[in-house]
Amino acid sequence: MTCFTGYSVRSGSGDTLGRVTSSSNSTQASIPPSALDRFHAVIPAGGVGTRLWPLSRAGAPKFLHDLTGAGTTLIRSTYERLLPLSGHSVMVVTGEAHGEAVLGQIPELNLEDLVLEPEPKDSAAAIGLAAAILHSRDVAAGRTGSAGTIMGSFAADHVIAPVQIFRDAVGQAVVTAATDKIVTIGIKPTHPSTGFGYIRTGEKYQVADAPDAHHVIEFVEKPGEQIAQEYVASGDYLWNAGMFVAPVSLLLDHLAAAEPELHAGLTEIAAAWGTDHQAETLARVWPTLPKTAIDYAVAEPAADAGDVAVIPGNFTWDDVGDFAAIARLNPAAQQENMTVLGKKPRVYSEDSSGVVVSETQRVVALIGVKDIVVVDTEDALLVTTTDHAQSVKQAVEALKAKGDSDVL
Amino acid sequence: MTCFTGYSVRSGSGDTLGRVTSSSNSTQASIPPSALDRFHAVIPAGGVGTRLWPLSRAGAPKFLHDLTGAGTTLIRSTYERLLPLSGHSVMVVTGEAHGEAVLGQIPELNLEDLVLEPEPKDSAAAIGLAAAILHSRDVAAGRTGSAGTIMGSFAADHVIAPVQIFRDAVGQAVVTAATDKIVTIGIKPTHPSTGFGYIRTGEKYQVADAPDAHHVIEFVEKPGEQIAQEYVASGDYLWNAGMFVAPVSLLLDHLAAAEPELHAGLTEIAAAWGTDHQAETLARVWPTLPKTAIDYAVAEPAADAGDVAVIPGNFTWDDVGDFAAIARLNPAAQQENMTVLGKKPRVYSEDSSGVVVSETQRVVALIGVKDIVVVDTEDALLVTTTDHAQSVKQAVEALKAKGDSDVL
Repeated sequence: MTCFTGYSVRSGSGDTLGRVTSSSNSTQASIPPSALDRFHAVIPAGGVGTRLWPLSRAGAPKFLHDLTGAGTTLIRSTYERLLPLSGHSVMVVTGEAHGEAVLGQIPELNLEDLVLEPEPKDSAAAIGLAAAILHSRDVAAGRTGSAGTIMGSFAADHVIAPVQIFRDAVGQAVVTAATDKIVTIGIKPTHPSTGFGYIRTGEKYQVADAPDAHHVIEFVEKPGEQIAQEYVASGDYLWNAGMFVAPVSLLLDHLAAAEPELHAGLTEIAAAWGTDHQAETLARVWPTLPKTAIDYAVAEPAADAGDVAVIPGNFTWDDVGDFAAIARLNPAAQQENMTVLGKKPRVYSEDSSGVVVSETQRVVALIGVKDIVVVDTEDALLVTTTDHAQSVKQAVEALKAKGDSDVL
Repeated sequence: MTCFTGYSVRSGSGDTLGRVTSSSNSTQASIPPSALDRFHAVIPAGGVGTRLWPLSRAGAPKFLHDLTGAGTTLIRSTYERLLPLSGHSVMVVTGEAHGEAVLGQIPELNLEDLVLEPEPKDSAAAIGLAAAILHSRDVAAGRTGSAGTIMGSFAADHVIAPVQIFRDAVGQAVVTAATDKIVTIGIKPTHPSTGFGYIRTGEKYQVADAPDAHHVIEFVEKPGEQIAQEYVASGDYLWNAGMFVAPVSLLLDHLAAAEPELHAGLTEIAAAWGTDHQAETLARVWPTLPKTAIDYAVAEPAADAGDVAVIPGNFTWDDVGDFAAIARLNPAAQQENMTVLGKKPRVYSEDSSGVVVSETQRVVALIGVKDIVVVDTEDALLVTTTDHAQSVKQAVEALKAKGDSDVL
């Protein structure tokens, strides 16, 4: 992959933020400044991260934790990763319960860019509402056609490195989206994972300042092992990391075609947004919206229509899906064979390996346990192995069924 | 082994305690009532039970826990096991820090029978002091020779069943001790354990009302595996469970011969016991006493002198040495494949086996962990396996070395 840095950072944001590298500024003349100026980052912060229970839970979901020892929460890292591209044009869509926590993490957030869902409605509603609100602002401001907002949606709980390569890919995605495309960033597979959906890439898409852009032939669901191996061997497939960059008008057009009811509801809410009717409209309309994923509602039909492009992302990407990921992502937290996370962990281990997450001040002693996962919180304790990390979700469901919801 | 019930319970204690079986009373005439009337039970309650950390610890040692789901602590069970034989003639020797807790468990205890050690001095000093105090009382009361006290020493933290067979063995030991013998109760080995010392039995010892009594040839240290197998195959060896029944005068004679310094110190303390000088004498003399085990100081030399007999105990006996024992001893606490102990355990397990001890109200979720040991206390958490149960002791030593003594 070509490492491209030929897009500008957002005009005027460099000095204020102090995050702009000088190399970015040097080539500013080579791309239309308008593309990145149209960019508005959207951070959907939904999902509890059930496989990370009892660390992550309804009241304190995954994105509010520092799961990589970076010293910042995942949502703050996501925000800072986007900041040089978006400036303060960042919107967060999250559950009502997490509004305050999100503002605690991103005090710079404009209050009108904090969108609170009365209840979870899956990604099409969350991202669609963001698009509808941004589009409604465009209309109000007279920004039509190629002046309209290009939104980029990036989940609040992903881990990405190095950020400069990520920013380069997003930059290419923005200029590609400016050609009226929905652009996804696909991750070069490092192994034949059966846990992710894949993106089948087509021919190179010729866009000035986006040398890595390709057409997308189709999105495919999580494959079996055999198919996954074929995908990776072919070199034509990328992991679908759920990152979308698109003109809001184009995204809404596809949503209207595939999910007219959802589109109508979101349009009604967006029209009331920022007015005296916002709360009433949201409370009335939101519960009626259908639950569906943005992949079904927008990405797949748009790909069928030939409207989707992809920028391959040659960076490491992890959605921190379980405690095995925690071990992978924290090489710096190794104590002998243990990965130890926590504010002031007091862990003694002998003849043991695995992960300890210590949210309490308790001494944790591990003897003769291999590939163990111990998550020690005030009201719940999990003991499993890295091999069983994915089973944590079922355990949480079982606890719910048993009536132990107070710790979920 | 003959199941013998031909000894009387302690005269006069039956009605008061309501614990006497009618079969015991029916043969009262066949033995001299004086033997059991001379009996005074001594319960040494020392030792932290380090292998049971973090459940058992310096401030709350093993004997203060209910480790069998019996609903009572080990020390209370020990007391109740002896009560029909000893009546209220029970002495407890424990550390100063545990005096109050012991009285909490045995409110019936006479205060002059609560002997508090200023610091741990091993079993010879603890049992020797009990013998010296009881002997001193005998002297003061004019009980000499065959009227003197027969003490029986039984550790506070052992688990025994069924109690009636135990009581039968103790009854035989008391009448055997009345023939001026130090009598141990040896446990019939169920397997070639390398964790216990063994007692080599000799010929039958002819004592009226003690049909199982045998001479003891020698005590032998914990053997290797090969030797242990030979011992068990021979049928001549019993496990040494550290239970001794002896006239206090005889025990003290042997102590005086083997450990004159210790004997002199204990005699000085005993002489001051119950007087105004008790505290001062104890504080001055106790720290100077040598540390040694009762086996070396009394049992082994007495066996060499031909003064030791044994009653084989055909009951199950466990010294609850580690968490593997906890699993063994709590068949009733099984939830699927897990042994779960605790006041209100909230344990969810899936595809797991082992032991959970829950001293907190936290939810404990176990997924895919086999033969696991999880001990969950307010300030410390242990995760190990039943195979590594014996290694807990080293972990505690390592924590001490690391400066984590607050949780030990």
